[in-house]
Amino acid sequence: MSAQSCFLTLTHTTKIRTSQTHDHVTFNPIITSLHLITPTRPTRSSFHILKASARTAAHKTTTPTTDPKLVEKSVNTIRFLAVDAVEKANSGHPGLPMGCAPLGHVLFDEFMRYNPKNPYWFNRDRFVLSAGHGCMLLYALLYLAGYDSVKEEDLKSFRQWGSKTPGHPENFVTPGIEVTTGPLGQGIANAVGLALAEKHLASRFNKPDYEIVDHYTYVILGDGCQMEGVSNEACSLAAHWGLEKLIAFYDDNHISIDGDTDIAFTEDVDTRFKGLGWHVIWVKNGNHGYDEIREAIEEAKSIRDRPTLIKVTTTIGFGSPNKANSYSAHGSALGAKEVEATRKNLGWTHKPFHVPEDVKKHWSRHIPEGSVFETEWNAKFAAYEKKYKEDARELKDLINGGLPVGWEKALPTYTPEVPGDATRNLSQQCLNALAKVLPGLLGGSADLASSNMTLLKMFGDFQKDTPAERNVRFGVREHGMGAICNGIAHHTKGLIPYCATFFVFTDYMRASIRLAALSESRIIYVMTHDSIGLGEDGPTHQPVEHIASFRAMPNILMLRPADGNETAGAYRIAVLNAKRPSVLALSRQKLPNLQGTSIDKVEKGGYILSDNSSNNKPDVILIGTGSELEIAVKAGEELRKDGKAVRVVSFVSWELFHEQSDEYKESVLPSDVSARVSIEAGSTFGWEKIVGTKGKAIGIDKFGASAPAGRIYKEYGITVEAVIEAAKAVC
Amino acid sequence: MSAQSCFLTLTHTTKIRTSQTHDHVTFNPIITSLHLITPTRPTRSSFHILKASARTAAHKTTTPTTDPKLVEKSVNTIRFLAVDAVEKANSGHPGLPMGCAPLGHVLFDEFMRYNPKNPYWFNRDRFVLSAGHGCMLLYALLYLAGYDSVKEEDLKSFRQWGSKTPGHPENFVTPGIEVTTGPLGQGIANAVGLALAEKHLASRFNKPDYEIVDHYTYVILGDGCQMEGVSNEACSLAAHWGLEKLIAFYDDNHISIDGDTDIAFTEDVDTRFKGLGWHVIWVKNGNHGYDEIREAIEEAKSIRDRPTLIKVTTTIGFGSPNKANSYSAHGSALGAKEVEATRKNLGWTHKPFHVPEDVKKHWSRHIPEGSVFETEWNAKFAAYEKKYKEDARELKDLINGGLPVGWEKALPTYTPEVPGDATRNLSQQCLNALAKVLPGLLGGSADLASSNMTLLKMFGDFQKDTPAERNVRFGVREHGMGAICNGIAHHTKGLIPYCATFFVFTDYMRASIRLAALSESRIIYVMTHDSIGLGEDGPTHQPVEHIASFRAMPNILMLRPADGNETAGAYRIAVLNAKRPSVLALSRQKLPNLQGTSIDKVEKGGYILSDNSSNNKPDVILIGTGSELEIAVKAGEELRKDGKAVRVVSFVSWELFHEQSDEYKESVLPSDVSARVSIEAGSTFGWEKIVGTKGKAIGIDKFGASAPAGRIYKEYGITVEAVIEAAKAVC
Repeated sequence: MSAQSCFLTLTHTTKIRTSQTHDHVTFNPIITSLHLITPTRPTRSSFHILKASARTAAHKTTTPTTDPKLVEKSVNTIRFLAVDAVEKANSGHPGLPMGCAPLGHVLFDEFMRYNPKNPYWFNRDRFVLSAGHGCMLLYALLYLAGYDSVKEEDLKSFRQWGSKTPGHPENFVTPGIEVTTGPLGQGIANAVGLALAEKHLASRFNKPDYEIVDHYTYVILGDGCQMEGVSNEACSLAAHWGLEKLIAFYDDNHISIDGDTDIAFTEDVDTRFKGLGWHVIWVKNGNHGYDEIREAIEEAKSIRDRPTLIKVTTTIGFGSPNKANSYSAHGSALGAKEVEATRKNLGWTHKPFHVPEDVKKHWSRHIPEGSVFETEWNAKFAAYEKKYKEDARELKDLINGGLPVGWEKALPTYTPEVPGDATRNLSQQCLNALAKVLPGLLGGSADLASSNMTLLKMFGDFQKDTPAERNVRFGVREHGMGAICNGIAHHTKGLIPYCATFFVFTDYMRASIRLAALSESRIIYVMTHDSIGLGEDGPTHQPVEHIASFRAMPNILMLRPADGNETAGAYRIAVLNAKRPSVLALSRQKLPNLQGTSIDKVEKGGYILSDNSSNNKPDVILIGTGSELEIAVKAGEELRKDGKAVRVVSFVSWELFHEQSDEYKESVLPSDVSARVSIEAGSTFGWEKIVGTKGKAIGIDKFGASAPAGRIYKEYGITVEAVIEAAKAVC
Repeated sequence: MSAQSCFLTLTHTTKIRTSQTHDHVTFNPIITSLHLITPTRPTRSSFHILKASARTAAHKTTTPTTDPKLVEKSVNTIRFLAVDAVEKANSGHPGLPMGCAPLGHVLFDEFMRYNPKNPYWFNRDRFVLSAGHGCMLLYALLYLAGYDSVKEEDLKSFRQWGSKTPGHPENFVTPGIEVTTGPLGQGIANAVGLALAEKHLASRFNKPDYEIVDHYTYVILGDGCQMEGVSNEACSLAAHWGLEKLIAFYDDNHISIDGDTDIAFTEDVDTRFKGLGWHVIWVKNGNHGYDEIREAIEEAKSIRDRPTLIKVTTTIGFGSPNKANSYSAHGSALGAKEVEATRKNLGWTHKPFHVPEDVKKHWSRHIPEGSVFETEWNAKFAAYEKKYKEDARELKDLINGGLPVGWEKALPTYTPEVPGDATRNLSQQCLNALAKVLPGLLGGSADLASSNMTLLKMFGDFQKDTPAERNVRFGVREHGMGAICNGIAHHTKGLIPYCATFFVFTDYMRASIRLAALSESRIIYVMTHDSIGLGEDGPTHQPVEHIASFRAMPNILMLRPADGNETAGAYRIAVLNAKRPSVLALSRQKLPNLQGTSIDKVEKGGYILSDNSSNNKPDVILIGTGSELEIAVKAGEELRKDGKAVRVVSFVSWELFHEQSDEYKESVLPSDVSARVSIEAGSTFGWEKIVGTKGKAIGIDKFGASAPAGRIYKEYGITVEAVIEAAKAVC
C-alpha cells in the first residue's frame, strides 16, 4: 500500500539523504548551495547547460553523456534487464521495452527531473507508461536511476507473488509509479489528469517571482492506447484545456497482439491529433535517432499553448533477430534460444541482469542530482513561504493531504421540517459547502452539470485561460472523465476530484472506476438519476443493476443517501476515505427529510431509523435505501397502526455496515429476527445476505420503462402497499 | 417485444397490402408490374429520374417535391409534431427535431428506400438516430411516412406508460426503429455494424447480375456522440473497412446540455474524421440549405471506398424565438408561451399535432412506393433464386433467422478420458464447429484473437477487400466492438455476432452489453481469462466482481462452463437464445473434462454432477462453477472418503437455474439441506441466495495479485482444503 511521505517529512528526509555517501558518486555538499531561486525553473537539459561549468568540474557524472557508445550501452542495458526479467518470469512483454529503450534512456537520463530517494517529491516530473504491459521498461529505468523500490532482486522476482514488480505498473505497490496502468488507454487519460492538476495548481499558487509548481507530464502510449476511445476523449480535452506541459510519446511500432496494425488500425493518427488540437512531431528513427528524440522533446517544450504528441517510430522487440517487428515479441518471453541470439545480435556479452560498470556509474548521478532538485525546490518554497504565507500554507496542506480542522462543520444539516428536495440538489449544497473549506475539491460533470447539480457557485470554469478555477467541464466523455480524475487524485494527496453523470452511465466509465478502487484513488462519483425515479427518459437511462454491480466491486464505497442528512453524511465519508473512492447514488426526484437521519450515522452504513419494539425483538425489520427509505418509513407507520413492532433501518452503505463490529450488526439486524423486508428501486441481487432466506427483497429485476416516475413506481410494485404485504407475509 | 416477420410472410403480407386502398392515394397495381430486374439498384432519387415518366403520369404524389413552400411546410410539420408531443408530455428534447427537421425531411422523403407497411423488409435503407434523445424527429418521420407503429395517438402519448413512443428510440417497442439508442455514441457504432452487415452479406450473396443486398445506412449523430470515445473507435473501423454505404450526418449545432460546445469541445471534427479516413462534406446551412443537403448526399453516394461524414450546421430549437441556439431548447419542453411564440415566428397557425392536407398528401406516396420497392426486390429475389438456388436458400435462412436442422450435432462432446484443456481453447473448438453449420456466425476479438482463441480457421479476415470473410478484427476497441455487434445482430435475424476480450475488459464495453440485453440482441460474448487464474498479468487484468455484475443485469445469460461439454452446452444455449445475449466466462488455464457433465444439462443452469446421498438428503452440497467445479469435485471425493454423503452441483448459469420449475430446483438444492458450500474464484456477492444463511461461500472479495496462477489460488484460499474445511463447518 502506498505510503506517500508528507511534505514536512520530505524536507527532513532529503536533508538526511544528502549527507549520505553513495556507492558510485560522492555527494558534494557544494551542490546544495546551488539552490538559486530562479524565477523560472530550469529543465534538466537547460539545467545542465546553465550549470555545466560549476557542475562538470566537480562531478563529471552529473552531465548526461553524448557519447554514443555509452548511450547505446545504457540503452542495451535497459533492453536486457527487460529481456532477462521476462525470461526469468517466463511471462511478460519484452517487445515494448526493447523498442522504447532509446526513448526511455533519453527521457529518464537527460530530461526528467525527479529524486530517486523521494519518489513523492512534489514538483517532480510525472511519467506514465500508458502501455503498462511494457512495465519492465519502467522498472529498469527506476532501477538504474536509483529508486529504492526497484532493486536487482525485484527485477529477478518480476511478476512473482509479493514482489515490487507486478505484471503491470501499480502505484500502490511500487513507489515511483505514478498511476496504475495496463488496461489500455487509461494511462494517457491519467496523464491528462496529472497535467490538469499541474496547470491548476500552478495557476493558483505560482507568482510572477516564484514558479513553485512547474513540472512536465510525460507519457508513453502505444497503438493499443491509440485505438481505445478513452484516449481520444482525454486527448480532445487536453488540447481544449491547452495542457502545454503534457508531452506524449506514441510508440508507433505497427504491431499489436493480433499482428500488424494494418489489420485493424489504418487511420492517420497524426492528422487525428492535429484535429484534436495537438502539436504533432514525428521521430522517424526511434531505434537510433537519439538526437531526433532530444530535439523533439525540446520542440515540445517550446510549444506554449497545446500538448504535444511525439510519434516515435520504433521496432518492437528491437535486437531480437527472429522476433523483432513481430507480435511474437509482444506478449511472451523470447525463449532461451532467442535471448541468446539477441545477445549475440546486439553484442551483449554480459550475464543476465548485469549492469556494466560505466553504465552504472553514469546513472548514479541521478541520486545526488535528484536531491539537488528537491533541495533547491525546498529552498525556493521556503522563500515563497516567507513572502506568500497564506498560499504556502494552503499548498502545503494540499501536498500533505490533511483536512482542515473542523471542515466537517461546513456540511449542512436538516430537520424533518425542512422541505424535501432531490438528493442531487442536496448534493449540490454539500459540494458548495465543502468547496469553501476544502482547497482541493474540484470537479464537474460529463455535460450534465445542470442535471447532476455539480456546479460550485463560488468558482468559474477550469479552462485554458482560467485554470485556477474549479468547475471542470468534461463534455460527454464519461470514461475520459473517470480516468482524468484518477490522474488528479494521484497528483497531489489533497486534491479531491469529484465527477458526475447519470448513474446508468457509470457503465461508460466502469474501467476507470475499477482502477480508482484498485489504485486507491479518493474520487467522489456524483451519480444522479439513480433509479426508475428519473421517469420519462426510459430504460436506456434508468439504472437497475448498478448498485449491485458496485457493491460487488472491491475497495469502493457504494452510498445511497435517503435525504439531506444522509447526503451530507455520505460526503463526509467520501472525503474521509482517502484511499477508496465513493459512489453516491442520488435521486432526480424530491425526497422528504426523514426523522432519525443524521450525518454521523451514515458512517455505520446501516442504522435504526425508528423502532417501536423492545428487547431488540421487532416483529419485522423494514430496510430501505435512498429514495425507498421513505417508503419503508411509511409502511412502518401503517404496520405500527396495526399493532406491529416495526424497526425501520436505513441501509445507506453495505460496505460500511459490514465493517462494523458483530455486536453493532446484531443490534441493528438481530440474527433471531428473520422477518425482514428490504426495498430498493434496483436489482434484488445480493439482498438475500441482508434479508436472509426467510425475508423478502422488493426491487426491480428487469429493465425500466419510459413514463412519469410515479407511474413506473406503481407499475413495478415499489410501493408502501407492497412493503406492507411482504411484511405481513414474513411476520 | 419485437416481432420481426419472417421472409416468407413478408412476401405474403406485401401482396395483401398492395391490394388495399389508402386514404390519400389509390394504389395503382400497374406499379407492381414495374419490378424491372435492374442489375444495379436505383437510389430513391435516381429512381425518380429513371421512372419519372411512367410514374408521374399516374401518380403525381410519388415524386418528391421541389416546391420550396411545400418542403418548408413539411419541415415545419415535423418541427411542430415534435414541439407539440414534448409539450404534451412536458418532457423530452424538442431542440434536435427542430434543428434537424430539414435533413430529416430530405432523407425520409427524397432519399431513403423503405416500406412503411413492412418495417422489416430486408433490403430497406437503415436509419439510426444516434442522438436518441431527439427521437421525436424519428417518430414524426415514421408517422408521416405511414408506419403503423406510430399513429397520431402514439405521438400524443409520447413518453407515457405503455406507449409506442418512449423517451428514447427502442427497437423492441416500435417497429421502424432499427436499434435502441439514447446513451450517446452507441448509435453511430451500431450504424457501423449495420453497414458492416450489409457489406458482408452483399459480398457473400450478390452476383454480377444481381445486387440482391444493396442498401445504405444513414445515421444522425450530435456533438455528444462525437465526444464519446465509442464513436471514435467505431468510426476508425468504419473507414478501415471501407464501409462506403455508411453516410453519417453530424448535427453540428454547437450546443450540448451544459451550453455552448465551446466550453468542452473545440476540436476540429472534420480534420479528425479525415484522419480516421472518412470522406467529409460540410453543409453550412442545415436550416434552409435543402439543395446543399441533397447534393451532399449525392456526393456521399458517389464515394466508393470510404464512409462519408456530412457535417450539417444547424440551429438547435430552430424557430423558437427565445430558446433557439441555446441549451434551454435541448432537454425540456419549450413551455406554452414559447410554443406560441414559435408558432407565430414560423407562421404556423395549426392546432397541436395537425398535419396540413397537402403535407399529408405529399407524404402519402411512401406507402405505395415502399410497397413497390419491396415487390420489386421480391421479384428480383425470385429470379435470383432460380439462378442461384443455394445462395438464395442460405440468404433466406439468414433473413428468417431459423437454425438449420440438426445444427446442434456439430457441437463437440467430451469424456473424462479426453485430456483437459482451457475452456478458451474448447470455446474455439465450438466456434469452429458452429461456423460450419451456422451461416450467420461471424465475429472476432478486440486484438486478443490468439488469447481469446476466436479465429474461425475456415475463414479469412473480414477486411475492406475481403468482406465475405467472417473473422472480424476489431483492434483494441472493446466498446466499439460491442456496439458494432449490436448493429450486426439487428441487421438480419440469422446473423450471430460473437466478440471477445479478457473478461475484465467487459468494463470497457459494459454500456454496449447493457444495450444488447435491453434491445434483445443475440450476441455471444466470448470472455476469456475469467479469474485470478490468468496469473501474472495481475489485478488490472483479473476479474473479481464481473460475474456478479452480469448476474445482476436483466435479460442476459451469464455462463461459466467448467469443461468441454459445458462449454459446448453454453454455446448451444447462447445460439438458442435469439432474444438475449450470453456472456461466456472462460478459463485461461487447463481444466479436466469432468465425469457427469453434458451439453444438455447446461440448459438447466444448475445440476447434480455427482452424489452419494439417498432420498435427496445429502450431508452437504458443494457447488462450483467454471474452473472451480474441479475443486468442488475433488473436495467431494475427499469428504466421501470420510463417510459423508456429498452432492456436487455444477452451477453454470444462475439465470437458467432460476427459470426451472420449483420441483426441479428442489431436486438439486433441497430446501431442508442448509449445509451448502459454494466455490467460485470471484466475488461472493449474491451467493447467499444459493448457499443460504447457514452455508458458506468461498470466493474472492478483494482485488487479485500478480503471480503464477497456482500461487494466487493458494494464497487466496481457493483450494480443495478450504472447501473441505467449510463443508465440515456447515455439516
